[in-house]
Amino acid sequence: MADDINAFVPGPRVHIEGRPDGPLSGLTFAAKDLFDVAGQPTGGGNPDWARSNPVPTRHAWAVQRLLDAGATLIGKTITDEVSLGIVGENAFYGTPINNRAPDRVPGGSSSGSAAAVAAGLCDTALGTDTGGSVRVPASFCGLYGIRPTYGRLPVTGMMPQAPSSDTTGWFARDGATFAKVSSVMLGEAIPTILPRRLIIAVDAFAFADPEVGEALRPMVERLRSFIGDVREEVMAPAGLTQWARAQRTLQPSEAWLTFKDWIDRDNPRFAFNVARNIILGSMIPESERGWARLVRREARGRMRYLLPTGTILCLPTTPFPAPRRGEPLSVASEQRDCLLCLCCHGGLTGVPQVSIPSTTVDGLPVGLSIVGSHGCDATLIGVGRALAG
Amino acid sequence: MADDINAFVPGPRVHIEGRPDGPLSGLTFAAKDLFDVAGQPTGGGNPDWARSNPVPTRHAWAVQRLLDAGATLIGKTITDEVSLGIVGENAFYGTPINNRAPDRVPGGSSSGSAAAVAAGLCDTALGTDTGGSVRVPASFCGLYGIRPTYGRLPVTGMMPQAPSSDTTGWFARDGATFAKVSSVMLGEAIPTILPRRLIIAVDAFAFADPEVGEALRPMVERLRSFIGDVREEVMAPAGLTQWARAQRTLQPSEAWLTFKDWIDRDNPRFAFNVARNIILGSMIPESERGWARLVRREARGRMRYLLPTGTILCLPTTPFPAPRRGEPLSVASEQRDCLLCLCCHGGLTGVPQVSIPSTTVDGLPVGLSIVGSHGCDATLIGVGRALAG
Repeated sequence: MADDINAFVPGPRVHIEGRPDGPLSGLTFAAKDLFDVAGQPTGGGNPDWARSNPVPTRHAWAVQRLLDAGATLIGKTITDEVSLGIVGENAFYGTPINNRAPDRVPGGSSSGSAAAVAAGLCDTALGTDTGGSVRVPASFCGLYGIRPTYGRLPVTGMMPQAPSSDTTGWFARDGATFAKVSSVMLGEAIPTILPRRLIIAVDAFAFADPEVGEALRPMVERLRSFIGDVREEVMAPAGLTQWARAQRTLQPSEAWLTFKDWIDRDNPRFAFNVARNIILGSMIPESERGWARLVRREARGRMRYLLPTGTILCLPTTPFPAPRRGEPLSVASEQRDCLLCLCCHGGLTGVPQVSIPSTTVDGLPVGLSIVGSHGCDATLIGVGRALAG
Repeated sequence: MADDINAFVPGPRVHIEGRPDGPLSGLTFAAKDLFDVAGQPTGGGNPDWARSNPVPTRHAWAVQRLLDAGATLIGKTITDEVSLGIVGENAFYGTPINNRAPDRVPGGSSSGSAAAVAAGLCDTALGTDTGGSVRVPASFCGLYGIRPTYGRLPVTGMMPQAPSSDTTGWFARDGATFAKVSSVMLGEAIPTILPRRLIIAVDAFAFADPEVGEALRPMVERLRSFIGDVREEVMAPAGLTQWARAQRTLQPSEAWLTFKDWIDRDNPRFAFNVARNIILGSMIPESERGWARLVRREARGRMRYLLPTGTILCLPTTPFPAPRRGEPLSVASEQRDCLLCLCCHGGLTGVPQVSIPSTTVDGLPVGLSIVGSHGCDATLIGVGRALAG
């Protein structure tokens, strides 16, 4: 089974037992190949990254956290190259199989982690989210997934991409496991008290394919039944397109700064589309970056205004279910642009977001997301658990 | 020996005996992996090219020509990826060893062909030249090499790059073998009558490193002693820099058109610098291309004016000897820009050029080139043979 879905990096599988008698004892987890595991090369999804970087001698913070809580590490998972990708296709290591939709992509860049959890190979798995890399595969593979509040959890030992947007994240198949793991990761009990107000982000729903909006309606109604006070509201008054543009100005510019010395020294190999993203990032003028920083400031203010304590917001995690595997680049690029419009608020504003497996469209999973103010991660997890129950 | 210098593509070596009793019987040759050999995949220096293209059922014209003349094919050689490269480093297959300067690059993109001939593994080898891909490795490896008149020899079965500049070409270690092979390829006897006039391209010499100009002086004097009438003249009145800019506008634009459908369909892997060249090519606006086409027209007129029948021109083939292997991209890019200024007239105007192994600088080979009017390829070969004698 494990080899069938191509979730794990090539070579012998790492196995590290969790501490006995921890809160997560008995659970297994996998880690995206962006997280350091002592004694294992961190591959970063690119054949020339590990070659140019020393084998780590310490576990990444997130790996250590789960091991200390008793979970057992059972493997490192395939990621889009240097975490630059959103559909989950890796030209060097292949595309992990999305067992909920085998002819479809798993989503990325935390592709192997999502695929492994979806296929039942482990109970939870670590991912990273810069521009949607946990949220998108969660939606496409029918999983719970979280992008925590930016800056809340240490990113020590996690390979960076765009440091002002990078977060860790994780997946689970069911609400109870998700809550258990999240409680450990966040260092906080998951509350049973639900928020008092719900905003339905109408601009985000308008961005999704009509079938997706339609399919998500019962889940929104369920949310409405838990939280009495509901109103419809625009998330980005000047347009999600503007927020997306700002994010795709800031993120690739930072990614270029992250990787440029390595690239200059080693001339690494990349799939064409990955190289293109890096190169376009290198060409963004400072004037555009200045504009994007201002948009980020406005977007953060908007989220603070929309989401006082006790208020959460819901939106479709992705505008469509998982696209087919092996689409031409021109098609995949358009899909990526649309995805970005529903994901950009995360990297731009740093708010926490949980994607809840909600429904299917033509048999393909698609998730509903809930978003809250900075630091209310546990509340969102609690809502997810309540919806599951 | 053969494996030591990494000249050949990985896998079993192809071997096809030449026709008995031909003019080249007893000679061996290799073919750059851009030429079709029936029954062998044409790799093009990139792992995703062969995968996406059918195995050819016929030999390329140039391969057939040499086989029919009696030469025996002993292997296919490593090339820069899809012939986009001038230093001869291939991130997938490695850099062929320049046995005249083992810590230096062999030059590219016909890197393996030049390395194989230089190391004595075969008598001659087929290369291709779009922007300098025969001339540069000939200079760096201390070989005879020709870029024939554009359009003179069929390019059937030769993988294209920029069709308005692509030519075939070949290498040899000595003037006699070079003349013998050239006579077959050109279908013409090599004349013993020498040109009447020599132009020393002073702008090109000014572009070369001072040590290179100094080291080439005895060879220029030898040329002067054969050809009485000598004058100094500027090759490009508005600057080789302008010609180079025009060529690097036209060539990458065409290369993009050549590869874009494949790239869109297959998202192939490339070394970063190769992807960058392709992407920059895709971004060149039509206004720039229009400008470059006008510069090409002027450059062709200038060459016709400078080079009436009976006149040849000489210049350094490269501004410097082979650079070190594994230079950072920033350094390699600068080197490439300089190389282009001495090579651009070939792809831009289509004139034939022969590089003659001439001298060394600090023990590293560097070649002197002679250029003539369209169609006078055999005359240039004759001059090369006379200088060797």
